Amino acid sequence: MTGKNATPVTVIGLGSMGRALAEAFTKAGHPTTVWNRTAAKAAPLTAMGAEHAEAIEDAVAASPLVITCLTTFDDTRLALRPAVASLRGQALVTLNSGSPADARETAAWAIGHGARFLAGAVKNVPSAVGAPDTLLYYSGDKTVFEEFETTLKVLGGDTVHLGDESDLAALYEMAVGAMLLPALVGFFQGAAAVQARGLEAASMVRFAGKWLDMIKSLLPMYAKEIDSGDYTDAASSVNLFLAGAAHDADLATETNVDTTWLAPLHDLVRRAAEAGHGDHSISALTEVLRLNSSI
Amino acid sequence: MTGKNATPVTVIGLGSMGRALAEAFTKAGHPTTVWNRTAAKAAPLTAMGAEHAEAIEDAVAASPLVITCLTTFDDTRLALRPAVASLRGQALVTLNSGSPADARETAAWAIGHGARFLAGAVKNVPSAVGAPDTLLYYSGDKTVFEEFETTLKVLGGDTVHLGDESDLAALYEMAVGAMLLPALVGFFQGAAAVQARGLEAASMVRFAGKWLDMIKSLLPMYAKEIDSGDYTDAASSVNLFLAGAAHDADLATETNVDTTWLAPLHDLVRRAAEAGHGDHSISALTEVLRLNSSI
Repeated sequence: MTGKNATPVTVIGLGSMGRALAEAFTKAGHPTTVWNRTAAKAAPLTAMGAEHAEAIEDAVAASPLVITCLTTFDDTRLALRPAVASLRGQALVTLNSGSPADARETAAWAIGHGARFLAGAVKNVPSAVGAPDTLLYYSGDKTVFEEFETTLKVLGGDTVHLGDESDLAALYEMAVGAMLLPALVGFFQGAAAVQARGLEAASMVRFAGKWLDMIKSLLPMYAKEIDSGDYTDAASSVNLFLAGAAHDADLATETNVDTTWLAPLHDLVRRAAEAGHGDHSISALTEVLRLNSSI
Repeated sequence: MTGKNATPVTVIGLGSMGRALAEAFTKAGHPTTVWNRTAAKAAPLTAMGAEHAEAIEDAVAASPLVITCLTTFDDTRLALRPAVASLRGQALVTLNSGSPADARETAAWAIGHGARFLAGAVKNVPSAVGAPDTLLYYSGDKTVFEEFETTLKVLGGDTVHLGDESDLAALYEMAVGAMLLPALVGFFQGAAAVQARGLEAASMVRFAGKWLDMIKSLLPMYAKEIDSGDYTDAASSVNLFLAGAAHDADLATETNVDTTWLAPLHDLVRRAAEAGHGDHSISALTEVLRLNSSI
């Protein structure tokens, strides 16, 4: 961990995630250069030994591996605009959310400026950066991934290359990420409901955690049903969920919690039942979610 | 496991969950009596040694512990109507979904007929019944729970009494359960999106599983924020989710997946931002979910 042989890394964008990335590299002994539009955010990192580049072109030129952690792909291209001349020959790795189309556009832009390009995502919170089990996935130029794999693993032990197409990480990011807000709002609704009863939200954490474990245990089965298109061996049927939907109005009445956000979900369940999936697995909702599908 | 000293148990309702319950008791050596409206469903259980009662009054009279596993509380009262005379002195335990009000009504009805009452829920799938880690929680008459705790633990090692109020299990069932359908639809949407790219839904299972682990890891923090009402130390802010919401339309366009069910969720996020929670933790959505709240 002396850093003598460690690959120099540049981190651009020092929000909470960017800071965590730069900190992980610095602690692991990588010569780390940081840049942020608001320079003051670099102070805690320079105190740890990171270099702060005043100009983004210097930050990009400082290391063969340049990691951006800005909010969107648009922000990333905009921030890098003064530094495009320095991009030539560098490995540019973006770690942000965005659509697959945005990822492709950014890949074409970066490659057009002579950079080698990889788009990735950190599948965890800033405090988990650097942990052996933390997942990050990347897609794009595999030679970049292979060359810098050891360095990238500083950010999380579970580091995966999804494929050569630059937009795959963005696709998976959106596909996998689609569970987050709905699951959280479900939890917040539950929290408001138990609080309405004078109980603490903390009292449901253990149960909610086990419930998420249960949901996780079902995913391989649902994926198999979806991939085969065979929904007939239903562990939990569409009709079972339809019956459950009726209770939400009761909960709203009794605990004074707004459950109207669930209405479109219940519509999906109803449409699946109407399309003949009533006795089929709830995973048949996938068919209803396809636009221009036959049902 | 000879069953010589094991408490006799009756299981009423032999859907997939009821069958799993009766099977667990039979395998554990409990003299098990089963009843179902469609008697044929009892056959696999009698083959394992369970007794089948033709009349529900005989089923109720057969054991000091009577467990019902019907779809709703209404179904339960309706099925038990011919057997009310046999309820006197028995411990009646309901394992089904339903509103807290339904649970209270059923408790009053059962107690009115001289039964001792406990309402519970199995927080897992039928195939998990009997496992050491499977969670079931109960509420209502604690003396019933204590008298039959060992027997009830046959159904799952993580067996909890939530309190004497008969509707607590229903309340937690709805509060905790509120994550299920939204999280699943998020997964199904993701599955449809990766399939639209010619990839298998199975390819996202590992990532989605780790994502659920990540969500689980956040729940204690969110509960603390919600219980304290202090949302200012935001790991993920309302504004961050607001920025992410913009990508959903892109995903819909690119992968031909219906993301309109997310619109009310984005509305909640927007309303939270408008109410001054933009820089606050996403858990501030709890405040927006309270009906007749000040915001």
